[in-house]
Amino acid sequence: MNHRRGGAPCAPRGGSFSPMNVPELAAAAKAASRTLAASSRETRDRALAAMEDGLRAAAAEIFAANEADVAQARADGLAAPLLARLGFGEKKLEGVLEGIRSLRALPDPLGAVSLRTELAPGLVLERVSCPIGVVGVVFESRPDALVQISSLCLASGNACLLKGGREAARTNRALFEAIRAATEAAGAPAGWIALLESREDVAAMLACDRDIDLLIPRGSNAFVRHIQESTRIPVMGHSSGLCHLYLDASADPAMAAKIAVDAKTQAPSTCNTVETLLVHRDAAAALLPPVCAALAAKGVALRGDAESRAVVPSMDPATDADWDEEYLDLVLSVRVVGSLEEAVAHVNAHGSHHTDAIVAEDRAAAERFIAAVDSADVFWNCSTRFADGFRFGLGAEVGISTGKLPPRGPVGLDGLCTCKWVLRGSGDTVGPFADGDRRFTHKQLPLS
Amino acid sequence: MNHRRGGAPCAPRGGSFSPMNVPELAAAAKAASRTLAASSRETRDRALAAMEDGLRAAAAEIFAANEADVAQARADGLAAPLLARLGFGEKKLEGVLEGIRSLRALPDPLGAVSLRTELAPGLVLERVSCPIGVVGVVFESRPDALVQISSLCLASGNACLLKGGREAARTNRALFEAIRAATEAAGAPAGWIALLESREDVAAMLACDRDIDLLIPRGSNAFVRHIQESTRIPVMGHSSGLCHLYLDASADPAMAAKIAVDAKTQAPSTCNTVETLLVHRDAAAALLPPVCAALAAKGVALRGDAESRAVVPSMDPATDADWDEEYLDLVLSVRVVGSLEEAVAHVNAHGSHHTDAIVAEDRAAAERFIAAVDSADVFWNCSTRFADGFRFGLGAEVGISTGKLPPRGPVGLDGLCTCKWVLRGSGDTVGPFADGDRRFTHKQLPLS
Repeated sequence: MNHRRGGAPCAPRGGSFSPMNVPELAAAAKAASRTLAASSRETRDRALAAMEDGLRAAAAEIFAANEADVAQARADGLAAPLLARLGFGEKKLEGVLEGIRSLRALPDPLGAVSLRTELAPGLVLERVSCPIGVVGVVFESRPDALVQISSLCLASGNACLLKGGREAARTNRALFEAIRAATEAAGAPAGWIALLESREDVAAMLACDRDIDLLIPRGSNAFVRHIQESTRIPVMGHSSGLCHLYLDASADPAMAAKIAVDAKTQAPSTCNTVETLLVHRDAAAALLPPVCAALAAKGVALRGDAESRAVVPSMDPATDADWDEEYLDLVLSVRVVGSLEEAVAHVNAHGSHHTDAIVAEDRAAAERFIAAVDSADVFWNCSTRFADGFRFGLGAEVGISTGKLPPRGPVGLDGLCTCKWVLRGSGDTVGPFADGDRRFTHKQLPLS
Repeated sequence: MNHRRGGAPCAPRGGSFSPMNVPELAAAAKAASRTLAASSRETRDRALAAMEDGLRAAAAEIFAANEADVAQARADGLAAPLLARLGFGEKKLEGVLEGIRSLRALPDPLGAVSLRTELAPGLVLERVSCPIGVVGVVFESRPDALVQISSLCLASGNACLLKGGREAARTNRALFEAIRAATEAAGAPAGWIALLESREDVAAMLACDRDIDLLIPRGSNAFVRHIQESTRIPVMGHSSGLCHLYLDASADPAMAAKIAVDAKTQAPSTCNTVETLLVHRDAAAALLPPVCAALAAKGVALRGDAESRAVVPSMDPATDADWDEEYLDLVLSVRVVGSLEEAVAHVNAHGSHHTDAIVAEDRAAAERFIAAVDSADVFWNCSTRFADGFRFGLGAEVGISTGKLPPRGPVGLDGLCTCKWVLRGSGDTVGPFADGDRRFTHKQLPLS
């Protein structure tokens, strides 16, 4: 195979970052993805180890680039939380290096056989995991995301085109160049990773539906929807995170308060934060006072329906619009429901199919909730904030999908894989089966 | 949950088939899908058994309706092969009933745990299979497809909206009504299946992106592309089937001829039929004469490149356009390649990522081909015609997907399922992990 149909491998060059345009980068990534798809675990592990070493060796350049980005952002008046996300020093470097090591400790996502069937004697079918191919990711201004995404792609045998936040341009360039040089020197195919730098590059990427297999946009609801409506490439992601916490009639009040506080306040601006609290009518009088007091003590503004305000009159009144609002802030809407089924109906109608949780001592009630809620993540007696690829043990995540088709939920190594069907025979033809001379056995064989 | 938010369950009614419009049918299907998602294997099996009994009981009405469809089609001058596909008599009925029984013999596709991880003591994550939800299928004029699709959907807990071919309208109506009445009487939720009858209904379905989770259009390339470009609902399927057979330098000539004849002539108008034959240069002189003779004896018109015509001069010359053409007829293009890698590059560049096969005695060569060809199905020493959900042991198929994301290849029960992540805790919150007071164990637990 020709690994360089797009031309020379990309390399940084002053103002214009690469001598290749986006379609050429996408074609080069496609060619590289063919090699990665057939690569061994050892080859990918060697490249991941080189990525770790290369980033460590380039630490001084990376930190200097980041200081310049931060200084510029400060001069531009960027808010303090965003400045903190933009910063990339020793501690964040150690964090991403540990992430790379954790990926190497996970089982190989490629070549896993999930179905093995003897169709007839001598004719054996396998469904085998393989990479998706070329993934385009547009991510926010946190530079550690670049390392996480590229290491996940490399470990799963995918080529990638990356576009980071404008504020982190210098840091991303330094990280990218360290990763590219180290991995290609260690045997990763040239062009497997490319960095895009402008909005025009993103627009150009949307047209590369022949070479790019999947787009993962991370960012605002409006941005994700814009991408979905502007390309023929499959788009994975979530445009909103409207998560619920339902307190069952059987909920323990102390546990309910503890989980509600964590799910609302541990990181209020994230997509897996709870926006609406539903409470079973039979326990509203017992649950709402302690739960609301704990939330109010953490500075959460509560907006209740009439029935919940009858129990906790200090809440502001909620309007119908509150049930569909993702606050991303220390605000929580509260509603009393007559049954678990009413809670499920509310979640399925108003939620974003991201993450929804039940607090209940009644196991049967919890299992009914789990079966009936149509969301990527459904939790029992724990905080919605656990919905995250790293916390799930996936190494990291490139995004969280709220679509119905796989990959669904936090997308880590497995989510970056698809499958192919491999049939091995010994001269078998369909004719004898159609004529009745041979019969299918369809015998399931052991997977290992 | 409210199972009937769309109104009364649909029922046949003279000219206008249902008192509900398409958005109402889609909403009713969504409500029914919530019930199906939480249904037990026993409930679904009972409904499948009732489907079988109901179809048998309605056989006379179904055959009469089909005779009327066939008479009309004959009067309209439909071609003989299409008339044969439209016919639905005793033998086809027995075939679809056997298909329903085979689905009941397969393992339950729902509730299967594919990953189980202890995140920390007392906090266990599972990835569990669940239905996609509501599936819209537009299929061709073969009435048996209606039974296959609806039984696959029911067995996998999905609700469905079906639109069949215009020529089979009476047969489809009879089949649908028998299925609907029998399954609902046996406990399937009202509205789980709906029949659409007009082009306007299909257009209306494309707008139901809130309630329909997946569209599966079957038909011409142009039709599938039209659907893909006209909806925000995910679309699964294939717009073409340009399959290859590669004869390696190590291929056995007799096996090569046998497989080539089956892959080209066993059913020339199907999507898994071979359209291009690639032959390794080192074996062209040994392989092409017997293979081409066997194909010509079956009436196949051969179009060769210059190098293959040097070996078999009786072939017509191929043009560049031949490498991208899906003949769906007894025509085959033939090309000599210099290496296995050149064959792979041709397949990846010109193929439709559907099904491609290698004939080789050299196992290592076969495995290189399997790893490098980027298609849903990759076969060794057997005919491409095996690419089919029934032959794969999936019970049947609703379609074949050539997209990269799952489901890929023939889509049967498993392909109609997605997953949800279920996390069960005992009051766990993220705060202590962020503060360093608790640590993730990420211990893989046994799946059963």
